[in-house]
Amino acid sequence: TSSGVFLLQMGWGDLGVFGEPSKETPHLDQMAAEGMLFLDFYTANPLCSPSRAALLTGRLPVRNGFYTTNGHARNAYTPQDIVGGIPDSELLLPELLKKAGYTNKIIGKWHLGHRPQFHPLKHGFDEWFGSPNCHFGPYDNRERPNIPVYRDWEMVGRYYEDFKIDLKTGEANLTQLYLQEALDFISKQQASQQPFFLYWAIDATHAPVYASKQFLGTSQRGLYGDAVREIDDSVGKILHRLQQLGISENTFVFFTSDNGAALISAPRQGGSNGPFLCGKQTTFEGGMREPAIAWWPGHIPAGGVSHQLGSVMDLFSTSLSLAGLQPPSDRQIDGIDLLPVILQGQLVDRPIFYYRGNELMAVRAGLYKAHFWTWSNSWEERSKGIDFCPGQNVSGVTTHTQEEHTRLPLLFHLGRDPGEKYPL
Amino acid sequence: TSSGVFLLQMGWGDLGVFGEPSKETPHLDQMAAEGMLFLDFYTANPLCSPSRAALLTGRLPVRNGFYTTNGHARNAYTPQDIVGGIPDSELLLPELLKKAGYTNKIIGKWHLGHRPQFHPLKHGFDEWFGSPNCHFGPYDNRERPNIPVYRDWEMVGRYYEDFKIDLKTGEANLTQLYLQEALDFISKQQASQQPFFLYWAIDATHAPVYASKQFLGTSQRGLYGDAVREIDDSVGKILHRLQQLGISENTFVFFTSDNGAALISAPRQGGSNGPFLCGKQTTFEGGMREPAIAWWPGHIPAGGVSHQLGSVMDLFSTSLSLAGLQPPSDRQIDGIDLLPVILQGQLVDRPIFYYRGNELMAVRAGLYKAHFWTWSNSWEERSKGIDFCPGQNVSGVTTHTQEEHTRLPLLFHLGRDPGEKYPL
Repeated sequence: TSSGVFLLQMGWGDLGVFGEPSKETPHLDQMAAEGMLFLDFYTANPLCSPSRAALLTGRLPVRNGFYTTNGHARNAYTPQDIVGGIPDSELLLPELLKKAGYTNKIIGKWHLGHRPQFHPLKHGFDEWFGSPNCHFGPYDNRERPNIPVYRDWEMVGRYYEDFKIDLKTGEANLTQLYLQEALDFISKQQASQQPFFLYWAIDATHAPVYASKQFLGTSQRGLYGDAVREIDDSVGKILHRLQQLGISENTFVFFTSDNGAALISAPRQGGSNGPFLCGKQTTFEGGMREPAIAWWPGHIPAGGVSHQLGSVMDLFSTSLSLAGLQPPSDRQIDGIDLLPVILQGQLVDRPIFYYRGNELMAVRAGLYKAHFWTWSNSWEERSKGIDFCPGQNVSGVTTHTQEEHTRLPLLFHLGRDPGEKYPL
Repeated sequence: TSSGVFLLQMGWGDLGVFGEPSKETPHLDQMAAEGMLFLDFYTANPLCSPSRAALLTGRLPVRNGFYTTNGHARNAYTPQDIVGGIPDSELLLPELLKKAGYTNKIIGKWHLGHRPQFHPLKHGFDEWFGSPNCHFGPYDNRERPNIPVYRDWEMVGRYYEDFKIDLKTGEANLTQLYLQEALDFISKQQASQQPFFLYWAIDATHAPVYASKQFLGTSQRGLYGDAVREIDDSVGKILHRLQQLGISENTFVFFTSDNGAALISAPRQGGSNGPFLCGKQTTFEGGMREPAIAWWPGHIPAGGVSHQLGSVMDLFSTSLSLAGLQPPSDRQIDGIDLLPVILQGQLVDRPIFYYRGNELMAVRAGLYKAHFWTWSNSWEERSKGIDFCPGQNVSGVTTHTQEEHTRLPLLFHLGRDPGEKYPL
């Protein structure tokens, strides 16, 4: 069984099926109607790099090295001027899938290190079309070069130079390139009858947000919505290709996100976390609860809804299970195999850990969530207008100083109070 | 064609299909899947009495008399110690439907006046089972009697005395009584082959919230969720009865709410307004945007979604249209006939007016909303812990003094910013 993971950068509230009031994601909503919706699914960190490392290793960022000790509760990521990346000692999902004859491809943003030793083809992927970092820029290309775009080992150009992004209009045809790349890969794999793992990790909804000309101005939600509509359309086309080729029943597909919507970029460049508190960078629900859909026609009953507490790390164990492989036994794996949940409707008792950097900020068990530390962002940032929780000031909860509650954790019941507004 | 209106007291975010994260409303979600979902549907006032008067007259509260001049921007309602009610000069929907041979029944809360001259059977209804006011109490029954419950002209008992509500456990079997009443009425009307108008206006989700024993403790959301689950179950049973009797294709059914969820009662007794700002009593989206579903098998295409700006007042004109009647021509009617929207997918250009009392606070045109006045609640109330916008403090927007913006209205784009957090 092949697997595909769509890893987008959207909030829980960005999909129609999760309640976005414009309902502009018909293909994702259809994917949910044909598959299983996860309502209590989490990323492993409220920031992109550590979440991606967790997805591909099945391990928390405190285990796989994606944290920093430079500042308390500071998340680590890999911008282009940082030299770190995924350690060789970590076993990535594609490395393991290779043993079962899989061809592995990453399309889009890698974000686990941009130096040669961190190249995705050194960590189990067979093919790559995309970039090592976010499409920030444009930069002066002598002092600080623009972010490169790779096809496998080869750098084929740079954002803003060879791969245009018009920051004024928001126009870029990158999602179309990434879509075509996925369709071609799937067709090639079907022809060769090889199992595959496709990791479609595109970043159109990450600021600076972009969309292709045909989608610009088509959303009620502005440029961010245009990008969401293009991604939704692309997901629909990829699933349709699997069905056309007759391999949808042999391909397990999962859609999720690496962190909550970035409210600092809202409303023009940032999405919605629905009824949840705050967004990206925080350990409130808006920062870490993610939209999630499993799709596997003929195996997953249509229209299912699961309240299993799930994590992006589970995609590691689940994909191994689909390939008939066991997770490595020489290290702690934090992900669980979701197949009994998805196929037999089981519920597995497990906690969710909310980290910022290497600090355990909160834990969820069942419907209860205990905060050991609360923090939105610093007063220093706040005074510059940076706010991770705009319009959501919950006294004693969305604190601008790091508040410790380890002796008496701040407790919420997420069933009665999903917005974390009424401490018990 | 008969019509049924379910008028509940829920927030936009309380239904699974609108994104409630526990997804505990399978029957309402199914109703939406078989019918048409309205995403931009409004009540006429953020409080129950004036909204109900608007629904039944098709007119804004400033026209039908449901406002007060006792205080600026103060909503009017009819508690048991107020002597006012619906004027005789107003023509109510059931009065007009009678001319087309309809039998009209109200089940639940009337709220348009409790003195004899305001009795619903004097204003067009043929049958009534329910109460003139909210089920507040218990009161001392000599000094201040408990709220009565009527069957037609006859007072058959009082809340807390003959119709028990256990405020400690939240147990009351009232929703079951109101359900049975609806099922019996529908069966009787089907047998007599008479067209009917059923107004099912029950109040289990209004504080003090209650549910029947079989539903207590069954929701992830607490007592409020138990009440929602019982209402959802009841709606499912009523629709099922219409289908069983073979009259679903002759019965137009509409589900909506009279105001946003009351966040002052949250989380135990108050619901969710999803991504919207504030709640009941306010003219922010959380106070007036409502869940809405139209259902009419064989006529409304299944799974439709409409962005028509709609209002509870439209149910007046639409129900008349279904009966082949014209709205009265001797007065201003604010509702529009939604049938072209529902059956032919038309979009009618019309504004939405947001009133508090007799003050026009805001107007929506297309995706833009202009606030002429902003106000959440007074500092005096706020200092007593009463907050209509808990956890949602938007600087300069959720003001605790009445702020005038008539010269330069505070403008929001509800597509890009449904939460009214980023003034343009």
